[in-house]
Amino acid sequence: LNIKSLANELGLSIGTVSKALRNSHEISEATKERVLAKAREFNYQVNPFASSLRKQKSKTVAVVIPEVANNFFALAINGIEAVAQAKGYHVLIYLTHEDVKKEITIAQLLLNGRVDGILISLSAQSKSKNHLMAIREKEIPLVFFDRVAEEFDVPKIVTDDFEVSIKATEHLIKNGCRKIGFLSLSKNTSIENGRKRGFLEALQRNNLIADERLQIDYEDESITREKIKKLLIGPDKPDGLFASVEKLAVMTYEICLEIGIYIPKDLKIIGFSNLYTAALLNPALTTVTQPAFEIGKQAATILFKMIEKKGHNFLQERTVIPSKLIIRGSSVNE
Amino acid sequence: LNIKSLANELGLSIGTVSKALRNSHEISEATKERVLAKAREFNYQVNPFASSLRKQKSKTVAVVIPEVANNFFALAINGIEAVAQAKGYHVLIYLTHEDVKKEITIAQLLLNGRVDGILISLSAQSKSKNHLMAIREKEIPLVFFDRVAEEFDVPKIVTDDFEVSIKATEHLIKNGCRKIGFLSLSKNTSIENGRKRGFLEALQRNNLIADERLQIDYEDESITREKIKKLLIGPDKPDGLFASVEKLAVMTYEICLEIGIYIPKDLKIIGFSNLYTAALLNPALTTVTQPAFEIGKQAATILFKMIEKKGHNFLQERTVIPSKLIIRGSSVNE
Repeated sequence: LNIKSLANELGLSIGTVSKALRNSHEISEATKERVLAKAREFNYQVNPFASSLRKQKSKTVAVVIPEVANNFFALAINGIEAVAQAKGYHVLIYLTHEDVKKEITIAQLLLNGRVDGILISLSAQSKSKNHLMAIREKEIPLVFFDRVAEEFDVPKIVTDDFEVSIKATEHLIKNGCRKIGFLSLSKNTSIENGRKRGFLEALQRNNLIADERLQIDYEDESITREKIKKLLIGPDKPDGLFASVEKLAVMTYEICLEIGIYIPKDLKIIGFSNLYTAALLNPALTTVTQPAFEIGKQAATILFKMIEKKGHNFLQERTVIPSKLIIRGSSVNE
Repeated sequence: LNIKSLANELGLSIGTVSKALRNSHEISEATKERVLAKAREFNYQVNPFASSLRKQKSKTVAVVIPEVANNFFALAINGIEAVAQAKGYHVLIYLTHEDVKKEITIAQLLLNGRVDGILISLSAQSKSKNHLMAIREKEIPLVFFDRVAEEFDVPKIVTDDFEVSIKATEHLIKNGCRKIGFLSLSKNTSIENGRKRGFLEALQRNNLIADERLQIDYEDESITREKIKKLLIGPDKPDGLFASVEKLAVMTYEICLEIGIYIPKDLKIIGFSNLYTAALLNPALTTVTQPAFEIGKQAATILFKMIEKKGHNFLQERTVIPSKLIIRGSSVNE
């Protein structure tokens, strides 16, 4: 029995039967059930057909990320590749370097159907999302991870930025900090929003004032370095710092080494970080460590479900995998 | 005047004229000169043709590397992208994870003409090079960087592994080390060969014995960790260690922290590394720092020359960019 005779039996077009067997959203549930029942009745093998479909695929997924010189993304890629390899898929990595113009160019390239699915973590600059809307509208399977656009109805894999940031900030407070500063990468990303909200929430719960002079947004490397240095030698210098990304924690260590501020005596520090040398630093850095590998793995798993089923059942999924606060020398009294 | 009338004038086929204008190696030098002379005579504009040719290109180059959780490759990618961006090209990153099977699969994929050129740094396992030979034979522009296959007639961008390893080893000797160990990733890669040869050369020049019991090759994470630990607590423990790759230097720090060996008092360490936290470690790590960004930039520059000229003039090029020995606390007496 082939698909043509199955269609004849059902009084449907070949296209409709084919779509029903692929579980397309264009076909009503009632029709799908009718087609599947008839297919079972005639012992019709769906697999050979699915396999011929598969041949048209590129067997490639794209991962669009801001940078690789960051252990979070390096580990997330490993998680994505672990899943992709099991599926026989190739992984292409595209870097935006936190530049929304590059992100737009990459999105346009991916619209041409070069890949079967896309995993993306947004650049810090991304405000307008039209380039991603185009991908969404073309129904190319799309999954956000870590830095997501909340307004999109696509699956999102994130960590518990808000909750863990409360925990990290309260850890600093318990260790005697009263003037805590916050270093962030950008005002635009979802992760920064969650982390900063958690930080502010912890201050409020503990009746501490959120002093805006102690809060710095990243601009470029050298401007940010100067701003932090100025903060740390100024009259209103903080006694604790919460760095929302790895590079800002490392930059603060460099500045403290340069100007002779002792961590943790003069300043306590916590950073979001997957730095594999965190425990070897002088002093060892207290980190909020994200489940980077697991985030990559989950994101890829959901992407492949979308690629294989072509369904819309996953679009509302939001997966939250908790981060861990790992306490080391930089945040506790010696 | 179009290419057809130019071909008529010359009494050649359009294909031959087109190839001659593209400087194809299939056309003899004599014919090329005849075609170019006639083209000049008729004031034939080569550019519009070249531009239509360019439209057939994918405007994409592939970078094939062992891993991204390594600052050398992260920086090299930045160098490659700086050049690619200026040329309006996209960069696709493929990871081999030091697995020659993955490298072969990727090479087969790239043979399908998905990209206009390939930059590759070999995996530690690559012994057989048939998969790369296929790319070379298909005349897809190919450039090796850092970890190269010396026997291929394609451009290679490397650093001065041998010379800088002599310098690093002699630095350890000058600081009192007499029993120096060597940690390597693999026996197969070009970089390991250069580094180990430099290490052995320095020992010989200084009348020190190369004790094979002090030399460890990476196997897997946990086996290697056990081997290094055993070495450091054993009766023949070294007073100096030279790690040929970053992750082995970091692993040694972790082991020393665990078993209570003090660096640099009990053991002096130097590692090949682009670790951006090297100066912040406890103690700061003396490194041989490779010009990673520059290596990436040079490799991409040569690749684009090959893509644009389709010539064979670059095949014998070997570019050596020196590394720097950066002395920090881990290798000098306190």
